[in-house]
Amino acid sequence: MQSLIVDLGERSYPIYIGQNILCEALIKPFIKGNQVMVVTNDTIAPLYLDHLLAHLSGLSVDVTVLPDGESYKDLTHLNLIFDNLLKNKHNRTTTLIALGGGVVGDMTGFAAASYQRGVDFIQIPTTVLSQVDSSVGGKTGVNHPLGKNMIGAFYQPQLVVADISVFATLPDRELSAGIAEVIKYGLIYDYSFFCWLEENIERLVARDADILMQAIHRSCEIKAEVVAQDEKEAGIRAWLNLGHTFGHAIETHQGYGNWLHGEAVAAGTMMALSLSVQMGWISIEDMDRVRRLFEKANLPVTPPKNMSSNDFIDLMSVDKKVLNGQLRLVLLKTLGEAVVTADYSKEKLMDVLSA
Amino acid sequence: MQSLIVDLGERSYPIYIGQNILCEALIKPFIKGNQVMVVTNDTIAPLYLDHLLAHLSGLSVDVTVLPDGESYKDLTHLNLIFDNLLKNKHNRTTTLIALGGGVVGDMTGFAAASYQRGVDFIQIPTTVLSQVDSSVGGKTGVNHPLGKNMIGAFYQPQLVVADISVFATLPDRELSAGIAEVIKYGLIYDYSFFCWLEENIERLVARDADILMQAIHRSCEIKAEVVAQDEKEAGIRAWLNLGHTFGHAIETHQGYGNWLHGEAVAAGTMMALSLSVQMGWISIEDMDRVRRLFEKANLPVTPPKNMSSNDFIDLMSVDKKVLNGQLRLVLLKTLGEAVVTADYSKEKLMDVLSA
Repeated sequence: MQSLIVDLGERSYPIYIGQNILCEALIKPFIKGNQVMVVTNDTIAPLYLDHLLAHLSGLSVDVTVLPDGESYKDLTHLNLIFDNLLKNKHNRTTTLIALGGGVVGDMTGFAAASYQRGVDFIQIPTTVLSQVDSSVGGKTGVNHPLGKNMIGAFYQPQLVVADISVFATLPDRELSAGIAEVIKYGLIYDYSFFCWLEENIERLVARDADILMQAIHRSCEIKAEVVAQDEKEAGIRAWLNLGHTFGHAIETHQGYGNWLHGEAVAAGTMMALSLSVQMGWISIEDMDRVRRLFEKANLPVTPPKNMSSNDFIDLMSVDKKVLNGQLRLVLLKTLGEAVVTADYSKEKLMDVLSA
Repeated sequence: MQSLIVDLGERSYPIYIGQNILCEALIKPFIKGNQVMVVTNDTIAPLYLDHLLAHLSGLSVDVTVLPDGESYKDLTHLNLIFDNLLKNKHNRTTTLIALGGGVVGDMTGFAAASYQRGVDFIQIPTTVLSQVDSSVGGKTGVNHPLGKNMIGAFYQPQLVVADISVFATLPDRELSAGIAEVIKYGLIYDYSFFCWLEENIERLVARDADILMQAIHRSCEIKAEVVAQDEKEAGIRAWLNLGHTFGHAIETHQGYGNWLHGEAVAAGTMMALSLSVQMGWISIEDMDRVRRLFEKANLPVTPPKNMSSNDFIDLMSVDKKVLNGQLRLVLLKTLGEAVVTADYSKEKLMDVLSA
């Protein structure tokens, strides 16, 4: 078992990474009362809920099972968690446990942030994407029909348990979507990790346990370093959004859940890289290396054909990185280093969107 | 004009108190971007919205008008604020301004806490209750059918403007409801303020401007002192809930809005005092002084006749002060000093509930 600490002062918490590590001794020290609400979805519940419940003996445990999918990540379904907490009279010492992917984690985190103005929560992410991304750093929330993740809170868990044994049942498409974010960490922060991924992408896609654990550990490490420097996204944390401004526009346009988040991020990253090439910051050869890596991970590298440049402009204008009317984008200065800037050529952006 | 600072480190903010003080010079320094969303209700909008808008010239201002009343303080109506923010493409530098009473303030504050995971907000409270209570201390949120204020956040405004000139249109019943909380500050924290209120209650009810400003200033001071010691309600802040556990049960049982919050607090405070008498902590004479003061302020001093002791027990069991299954109550040790305790006689509580 590997571990690391997300260093956020009094809001610091550990991430444990390993295979078959979920057990009572790991979780119980982080539960302060005797009430627990497990939040999961109808895909994960039949697979892993009993396994988790077996490690929560002696506690008063309730379960909320949400429908699976990004399209249910909204205030209406968030309220199902509140309904269940109140119906079962959970008090301020309760602990919420998120058992599922990013949607379950984000919704449970926001429910924990908001229930009685804040209770504890624990993340047990069950996808690659949620292990390397959404469970680290405390971004929680739900979608709004007019924009993704527009309603939420910065709220840190007490503990994250990233157990790769749950990937046994993860669909290939979800695995690939998670690898998109892993590749992103190399691109924005660590060129040598990017090179390591180029060497090991086949083993990663084949779910080699050691390679998976190394990739998850390094990804969490990078995210933890970035978040520790900038918890509320005033600066460097925005690097983590490489490909996301384009990607969110794709997800919103296609309807939540039709493109997986990681798929949209891969296509969006290629658009950001294309603009980075046009700005003269990275070479076409660099961009081709990234494209090949995404392709080997079975990820899309172009946006959906039914999206016009106007669709992008319209949807990107509500991005959270808009500052005083200026859309800032995360671009690459070089492989391994990102930059957040509004100082790009608008004509070149239009070229990319029209391509 | 009087002022005070709510001292919460980097989240500190000023409260300005006076008559006809709302002006551009006071507000504009606290607005960092050029977007503003004013949130108000359909009672206040016709009275004061134009006046406020006149002081926001040069800014890009949108307005959300909510229906007036506690019964609309829910996730559905909160979402109207998000709808309007997104439709008008408000970004992270936007400032929300709450123009209204406690419901508008609590909802706007929670919208600000949650929109894009947190934007700035300013409180312009238009009732006595919201000037002395809900606009100080950062408790924001909405109700759930199963419990009041069960969904929310601790989130501080940038500025509070408490202008008593808005009371010109405040109904008498609302004035009285606000005075209930003013009396509470004397009871829990400052016996001499309680005595001052006994002397000045007639002038306060008659809306004497000087007396109103003094009462509001001292109330805000007490709340600010308490909140500065205990922002997240781990200890002394719970004193502020004298009468609220009983009061919330009354409000929930009667349906939100039928009893005003301050009315329920007055009746609930008398119940808490009755238990305090039974515990031998305050005298019957003390309790009678408080009853007379509430009565002079035209406030109810007994719970609704259609509530049974079982109604109370059931509704109080979801109170946020329940700790490991124990209901803690705020009681009075003496006039001017409260205590939060689960160490009261359950039989005596039942006596109070059955009375």
